[in-house]
Amino acid sequence: MSKLYARYSSMNAGKSLQLLAVKHNYEERSMKVAVFTAAIDDRYGAARVSSRVGIWAEARIFDPQTVFNRDLLDDDVACVLVDESQFLTEQQVRQLHRMAHVGSGTGGAADKGLPVMCFGLRTDFLGNPFPGAAMLMCLADDLEEIRTVCRCGKKASMNVRLAADGSRVTEGAQIEIGGNARYEAVCSRCFYRDARDS
Amino acid sequence: MSKLYARYSSMNAGKSLQLLAVKHNYEERSMKVAVFTAAIDDRYGAARVSSRVGIWAEARIFDPQTVFNRDLLDDDVACVLVDESQFLTEQQVRQLHRMAHVGSGTGGAADKGLPVMCFGLRTDFLGNPFPGAAMLMCLADDLEEIRTVCRCGKKASMNVRLAADGSRVTEGAQIEIGGNARYEAVCSRCFYRDARDS
Amino acid sequence: MSKLYARYSSMNAGKSLQLLAVKHNYEERSMKVAVFTAAIDDRYGAARVSSRVGIWAEARIFDPQTVFNRDLLDDDVACVLVDESQFLTEQQVRQLHRMAHVGSGTGGAADKGLPVMCFGLRTDFLGNPFPGAAMLMCLADDLEEIRTVCRCGKKASMNVRLAADGSRVTEGAQIEIGGNARYEAVCSRCFYRDARDS
Amino acid sequence: MSKLYARYSSMNAGKSLQLLAVKHNYEERSMKVAVFTAAIDDRYGAARVSSRVGIWAEARIFDPQTVFNRDLLDDDVACVLVDESQFLTEQQVRQLHRMAHVGSGTGGAADKGLPVMCFGLRTDFLGNPFPGAAMLMCLADDLEEIRTVCRCGKKASMNVRLAADGSRVTEGAQIEIGGNARYEAVCSRCFYRDARDS
Repeated sequence: MSKLYARYSSMNAGKSLQLLAVKHNYEERSMKVAVFTAAIDDRYGAARVSSRVGIWAEARIFDPQTVFNRDLLDDDVACVLVDESQFLTEQQVRQLHRMAHVGSGTGGAADKGLPVMCFGLRTDFLGNPFPGAAMLMCLADDLEEIRTVCRCGKKASMNVRLAADGSRVTEGAQIEIGGNARYEAVCSRCFYRDARDS
Repeated sequence: MSKLYARYSSMNAGKSLQLLAVKHNYEERSMKVAVFTAAIDDRYGAARVSSRVGIWAEARIFDPQTVFNRDLLDDDVACVLVDESQFLTEQQVRQLHRMAHVGSGTGGAADKGLPVMCFGLRTDFLGNPFPGAAMLMCLADDLEEIRTVCRCGKKASMNVRLAADGSRVTEGAQIEIGGNARYEAVCSRCFYRDARDS
Repeated sequence: MSKLYARYSSMNAGKSLQLLAVKHNYEERSMKVAVFTAAIDDRYGAARVSSRVGIWAEARIFDPQTVFNRDLLDDDVACVLVDESQFLTEQQVRQLHRMAHVGSGTGGAADKGLPVMCFGLRTDFLGNPFPGAAMLMCLADDLEEIRTVCRCGKKASMNVRLAADGSRVTEGAQIEIGGNARYEAVCSRCFYRDARDS
Repeated sequence: MSKLYARYSSMNAGKSLQLLAVKHNYEERSMKVAVFTAAIDDRYGAARVSSRVGIWAEARIFDPQTVFNRDLLDDDVACVLVDESQFLTEQQVRQLHRMAHVGSGTGGAADKGLPVMCFGLRTDFLGNPFPGAAMLMCLADDLEEIRTVCRCGKKASMNVRLAADGSRVTEGAQIEIGGNARYEAVCSRCFYRDARDS
């Protein structure tokens, strides 16, 4: 039975690297994967999944209008990989869940569900869930954390936004994509200790 | 470092039994636990956590007005256990997250965070997340699924509501607590196969 | 695809309770399970799996001569549950692994593998693996820890043997089954701190 | 509390890549890691951990004579990473377990245990555990599988050795390191189906 997989973490834990590793494993078996990433993330060029360790792959873009169904995919796709999955809408998560579990109805191999792996954050810099992430965490058949370390040495599970001067930002819009400079992964303890009113 | 733990599952997987087992393990060490359950669930009497295998324990009731903080607890509580955690408000989940990670500020043992374990569902009979569950899945430091089996033999991860005649109900209010008779845990595949428009 | 599951823990974490919960979940679906426990454990009578919270079930006995294959099981068994799995021989773990993955060769439902769940310890009171546990941890398709707490509040993952006067025993035979009185689950830190030469 | 972590998988799942990702995460925090790999693996030069996706790092070599203790490490090391951990001796796994849980006894930061992460296989091409892997799986405080896919599409958890002509090898020595050409990760079902007498 295919599944909807969620691989979640805080910022800069290496989610994209994990996605690229899965892609590599499939392709080494001559199996084809479909890779998606959010239109919103143009850090490395619009159509790429890139890891900070220096490897990358081309990707297709999704935005809130994308409809995830089998028509979107070549017939021989064996696995769907979605980076920056916190930017999926709740509806899109539902589509992906259905894609993992409902066959194409046409018979043959395409008639089975397709494994779908989503890589993304859970909460924003205020500790509020991304709507798509909340839906994903509640529907995924298989959840696994990609771990990284807080500057205090503990496991990081939250994110903070930093201003240019390094001070912590405690208000603003949920979405404002960036690189290492502006976000930092912290443990829950540091998240609360350093914040006045979060 | 203490943590916020989420133990999630579909209906009738044995969540309450898991809670009672944790309680037993702590008490065997002469450590005190605080047990909460939702006011909404009066299946076995308002102030009990009960397992269908026949064991139970007294519990305190939470409702949407409950404020989870250290004042609510005896000083010597070593662990907080919450059953039916899908009925927590988002704000209450945030309070429990904070309780796990922020000390009392009074010095001593009470000055460390307190382990908090929540046992609950993720989604309702339509596959929509409970708001508190979505928050919990996005904030918990440690997630673990309590598994049960679908009638088809696969792992169950969704819930369906059944009418008195055994037919599936596909509309209605999210909350309508009951025993084995009215809900059934199913795998995602059966969830979609048996539903026309979910 | 059926699997070989390992549910491991230190002493008194509630392994038997977990087994009974799984059994309950299957039987509630009208699916039949086969329950085995070690001949060596006669704490509660030879043919029982018993939880310290007060529930129990009848079980079949295995000893080192038992050969685990489909001939041992009724045709309609949907799941095999093994308690005290640390007493399995390496060969028996291999048989159970094969049972999970190789069909009966007779066609029909029996021709698929059978889910097998083993509940047991990993290491003895000196921190040495039980041979069957080592094989199980290396072959199981799905590993999950059943947690309990050390008297210091941390997760317990090791076991110590206690003499009648409560002092720690640091030599002796690996197998000497007993109840709460003679073993205690401790975290790794307490395991080493309290031992001179383990 | 620091821990002994085991990250296990079958061949070619990307264990080295995971190690390099952890190293990257620590170093991005200006924390120092110590990286070890087995002398036996000279695929990419003796003193490297290399991923097939094209990134690598220098490593120190361990062989059966290496004694893992704090004297081996610089004082400011924040984490120990061991690749090819299936080649550790049982005694070395015990040393690493102790390193994770026993302080240096000298006071200060060094007086706490040190996180140790081991990346390796569980079983050889015949399905027999590596001795060090068996010890690691039984002592590790935190186990996580690094997944890869079998050519049949299922999760791979076993390894097979292939002769130059692609046929499966079913006898020979446990250790015979090599690249993609000579080993293949397979699921348990394919492991047994394709073998006459394993």
